[in-house]
Amino acid sequence: MFARRLNEAIRAKKSPLVVGLDPDITKFPPGLKPAAGASRTEIAEAILAFNKSIIDQVADLAPAVKPQAAFYEEYGWAGMKALEETATYARSKGLLVILDAKRGDIPNTALAYARAYLAPDKNPHAFPCDALTVNPFLGRDGLQHFVNAATSNQRGIFLLVRTSNPGAADLQNLTVQETKRPVWQEVAAWGADWAEKTRGNEEYSPVGVVAGLTYPHEAQTLRQLLPHSYLLLPGLGVQGGQIADALPCFDNSGLGALLVAARSIIYAFSREPYNSAFSPDQFAAAARKATMDVLRDLKAAGYPLQ
Amino acid sequence: MFARRLNEAIRAKKSPLVVGLDPDITKFPPGLKPAAGASRTEIAEAILAFNKSIIDQVADLAPAVKPQAAFYEEYGWAGMKALEETATYARSKGLLVILDAKRGDIPNTALAYARAYLAPDKNPHAFPCDALTVNPFLGRDGLQHFVNAATSNQRGIFLLVRTSNPGAADLQNLTVQETKRPVWQEVAAWGADWAEKTRGNEEYSPVGVVAGLTYPHEAQTLRQLLPHSYLLLPGLGVQGGQIADALPCFDNSGLGALLVAARSIIYAFSREPYNSAFSPDQFAAAARKATMDVLRDLKAAGYPLQ
Repeated sequence: MFARRLNEAIRAKKSPLVVGLDPDITKFPPGLKPAAGASRTEIAEAILAFNKSIIDQVADLAPAVKPQAAFYEEYGWAGMKALEETATYARSKGLLVILDAKRGDIPNTALAYARAYLAPDKNPHAFPCDALTVNPFLGRDGLQHFVNAATSNQRGIFLLVRTSNPGAADLQNLTVQETKRPVWQEVAAWGADWAEKTRGNEEYSPVGVVAGLTYPHEAQTLRQLLPHSYLLLPGLGVQGGQIADALPCFDNSGLGALLVAARSIIYAFSREPYNSAFSPDQFAAAARKATMDVLRDLKAAGYPLQ
Repeated sequence: MFARRLNEAIRAKKSPLVVGLDPDITKFPPGLKPAAGASRTEIAEAILAFNKSIIDQVADLAPAVKPQAAFYEEYGWAGMKALEETATYARSKGLLVILDAKRGDIPNTALAYARAYLAPDKNPHAFPCDALTVNPFLGRDGLQHFVNAATSNQRGIFLLVRTSNPGAADLQNLTVQETKRPVWQEVAAWGADWAEKTRGNEEYSPVGVVAGLTYPHEAQTLRQLLPHSYLLLPGLGVQGGQIADALPCFDNSGLGALLVAARSIIYAFSREPYNSAFSPDQFAAAARKATMDVLRDLKAAGYPLQ
C-alpha cells in the first residue's frame, strides 16, 4: 500500500516534509544556468544535474519529492526525459515520488493517464512515480480510473480539493445551493467515500487530497472530513503558508499529512538568510540547510516525531 | 490571430470537423500494432506512422487535428516525442493543431505550462501547437497566464466548461446558491469576459470553450452566452453526440464552432460499415471515408459551407 510506504518513510526520517522539484532555469545558480541559445538537451541535462544535487542533500530528510510536471514539459520530450530520470534517481535514493501533474479527463482518456502514471496493468512503460495529483473538474467517472489504478497497483492519488493559490476561491468556494456547502466540500465528500472504500484495514487510504496550507481553516476542516486520507499541504514559504497551521493536520503519530515546500528550499541559496552563508555553487547545501530549518521549526512547534 | 487562422482554414476546406488523434495501440491495424514486448521507441514509431497516414488522408478535409496528450504520455518521453513530431507533421500539411492536454495550475505553474504550449515569449523550445485546452478548477489567476500567452502569441485556448462525459454533471452542474446558475455557467462567464477583452476588432476571440456535443442544450446555451468564442464540440460518434445538435452552434457563415470526432474516424476500419469495404491495412483510407461521410451528413443537415 502506498500509504503504508509513506507512513514508514515519515517514521524512518522523522519528517513529513516533501521537497518540490520545480526547476526554473532562470533561477539556477550561474554554474548550472544554461547559456542563451542552449539546446533542449543541454537544458534537460542542467535540470537533471540540479535535481540530483538537491536529491542527494535531502534524501535523508524527506520522505518524498514532488516534481511539478509543467517545469519539465516546458522543454518537450527532452524535459520529460529529465523528469523521468529525476524520478528514477529519487527512488534509487529511497525517496517516494509524487508527480504533480494535475491530470483529469473523460473516462477513456483518464484510463490512458492512469496507464501512464499509475500503471494499473503493470505497464512496463509507465512513469516511475508513486503517486499522482488529479483534478476533479470532469467528475467522478474519469477519476474512478485513477482510484482503481492506485488501489490495484500500490500507488496513490492526491485529489485537488482546495488549492493554495489566491484564485482558488473563484470556483472551489462557490456555495452549492442543494447542500449549502462550498464546491470544495463536495469534492472532499467524493474523496472521503473513495478513501473509505479503498483503505481496507489500513488507517490511511491510497486516496489523499490537496489542501493549500495558505487556507488553514479549510485544511483543518478537511482533516476532519477525511480522517483516512493523507493531506498534501502545498504553500509553505514563498506562497505564505505557516508551519503552525500545518500542525493540526497531523495525527498524534505525526502521520496523515505532508508539508510541501519547493521554491523556498531549492532556491534557498539566493534568499535570505542563506545567501550570506552559501555561495551559488553551494545551492544544494543551502537547500539542505533550509530543509533542516523547516524541520527544526516544525519540531519546535510540537510535531510528534522528534 | 488564432481565430482568424481558424476561420480561414474552415472556409478553405468547407469543413469545421477536427480529427482527434488518440492513438491506442491495442486498436491499431495488425500491420502497425507493436509486438508484445516492443520498446517505447518502437511503439512511438508506430504511433507516428499511424498518425502520419491519417493526417495525409484528412489534411484537405479538416481545418485542425486534436491530439489527446494522455495517449502519448503513456509512453513517457518517447511518446512525447511522437506527439511533437505528429504536431509538426500536421502543421506541415496545413493543419492547425489543438493540443488536448487540459492543463491548469496555480499562477507560477500555469505560467510554465503557458511557456510550454503557448510560447508567450517566443520560447524556441515550445511545443508546436496552435491551441491548448485548459481546466478551470484552480480559478482565474492561473488561467489568466494562458489567456495572456494566447493573446500575445497568436495562439488559442479552449476552456473546459461543460465536458462530454456522463460524470460531467457531478461538479459542473452543481447549482451555485448566489447566482442560481450551474457551475459551468459561472466558468462560461469567465470565458465570455476574456473573449470580450481579447477579441479586439475580430468576431472571434482566441479564448474558446469546450462544450460536449452529448449535452446539446448546454452547448446551445453556451452559443448564446459566448457569441465571440469558438465552441469545441467533442463527443460525436462513439460518445453518442449527434450532428443535428451541432448545427445551432455555428454562425450563419459556418464558423464559430468545431466538431470533433476521434475514435469513430481513426478506427473506422474496424467498425461498420467501413470494415466490410476496407481491410485493416487500408485504415487511413477508411478514416478518410468516415471523415467525408461526417461532412456529407453535416452538409445534408444544412451546414452553411457547402
